[in-house]
Amino acid sequence: MEQKISIIKIGGNVIDNESALQSFLRDFASLPNPKILIHGGGKLASRLSEKLGVETKMIDGRRVTDDQTIDIVTMVYAGLVNKRIVASLSALSCPALGLCGADGNVIPSHLRSKEPIDFGWVGDICPEDINTDFIASLLQQGITPVFCAITNDGEGHLLNTNADSVATGVALACSKLGRTSLVFCLEKNGVLSNIDDPNSVIPEITPTCYVTLRVTQQIQGGMIPKVENALKAIDGGVGEVIIKHADNLLNNIGTVISK
Amino acid sequence: MEQKISIIKIGGNVIDNESALQSFLRDFASLPNPKILIHGGGKLASRLSEKLGVETKMIDGRRVTDDQTIDIVTMVYAGLVNKRIVASLSALSCPALGLCGADGNVIPSHLRSKEPIDFGWVGDICPEDINTDFIASLLQQGITPVFCAITNDGEGHLLNTNADSVATGVALACSKLGRTSLVFCLEKNGVLSNIDDPNSVIPEITPTCYVTLRVTQQIQGGMIPKVENALKAIDGGVGEVIIKHADNLLNNIGTVISK
Repeated sequence: MEQKISIIKIGGNVIDNESALQSFLRDFASLPNPKILIHGGGKLASRLSEKLGVETKMIDGRRVTDDQTIDIVTMVYAGLVNKRIVASLSALSCPALGLCGADGNVIPSHLRSKEPIDFGWVGDICPEDINTDFIASLLQQGITPVFCAITNDGEGHLLNTNADSVATGVALACSKLGRTSLVFCLEKNGVLSNIDDPNSVIPEITPTCYVTLRVTQQIQGGMIPKVENALKAIDGGVGEVIIKHADNLLNNIGTVISK
Repeated sequence: MEQKISIIKIGGNVIDNESALQSFLRDFASLPNPKILIHGGGKLASRLSEKLGVETKMIDGRRVTDDQTIDIVTMVYAGLVNKRIVASLSALSCPALGLCGADGNVIPSHLRSKEPIDFGWVGDICPEDINTDFIASLLQQGITPVFCAITNDGEGHLLNTNADSVATGVALACSKLGRTSLVFCLEKNGVLSNIDDPNSVIPEITPTCYVTLRVTQQIQGGMIPKVENALKAIDGGVGEVIIKHADNLLNNIGTVISK
């Protein structure tokens, strides 16, 4: 595949706001193919859990997924959110295919070890197991895959999976097909050198300059694991990782992490 | 496509019973490819509606689908039921792809007229609009499409659709690709000549002998529209329509309707 493959991940700040989502999808639909969308579920799953009287348990920001919760996240992520996005993209003349990892065995996963913390029906993926032939076949037909972060273990169990990990895994796998650009849409404009100044976006980060940025404490807090994961993805073959605000999908505001 | 394409529709009596579903899926997985599964939603949507305090309204056995209900049926049919089936088939070494009509624009539909009855977000399909190229591409890759009965109108709205109509539409569309066998799995062993005798299955019905069966009142009640729809499907190009019990998928007990 000669063209760049864009893999774009959106989270709760886009999904939980219908007008932000529709605005994002208009921008996304206008991007050239080939492209792939990965979405989380936002707050809808917690809201549905609450209505059904199922307690939401989080440990370190990750959802503990018991028998009732895997049904709820499957309904919300693979059903409601995924199909709404696909229908909206279809209306924007962007033919899309909604997928969970079980579909076409595209993203196999394995149940996370119950030690040291038992997260329940939670899966972890190996990028090398991803069915890139199937993704390539969709892209070649001009179809945009839309992944939710539900996978399966090959033994009939659906597993709740981290959407950032799915996005990174898909980008790593697609790097066999062509140059990949992995875009994380966050609430911030990018990696900021001053967390109080939304305009202090660091435009570029390379492995070399990252060392300096860490030493001078220009990168702090929650951005450290995100940038380190991005550097690992680059090292694994992803062409570039971009961290930006969903509103800036079509412009250059954001942080590009590359070699 | 030289081989026969099997299109099999299951309803509530299979979906609502986990052990019946798993037993059916084992049989289904063992059928030779190419094959397609179409499922309804059973009672799960009504149960979820009840838990959420959303009233289920039925007119003539059809669900009235308001704003809340379309979200509920999308969650249950396209999320929970569809992905559970796909994960189970995957575990049975039958790679499957879960689809609603919006995915890959595979089954376009249009909002049903609000006259004489306003059913809300309900769609009707035209078999000639079905994207058979996309279905053929999946079948050629050895992937089994699993359709739920949610479609979209091309304007961003998801629509609740009759699963029997989806099954018939898919069978008619696939008849362009090869000889089709459309199987409706019901609670009965087939079309019965004596409704009180489950063993009185009429093995074959042709358009000619149907006239006699009607005159002699050997076909009665709810079976009349089913057989008439089957005869229309045959007339439209479907190779055969089979009415049988889900337990008998692998044997010859059932009614074959053909030219």
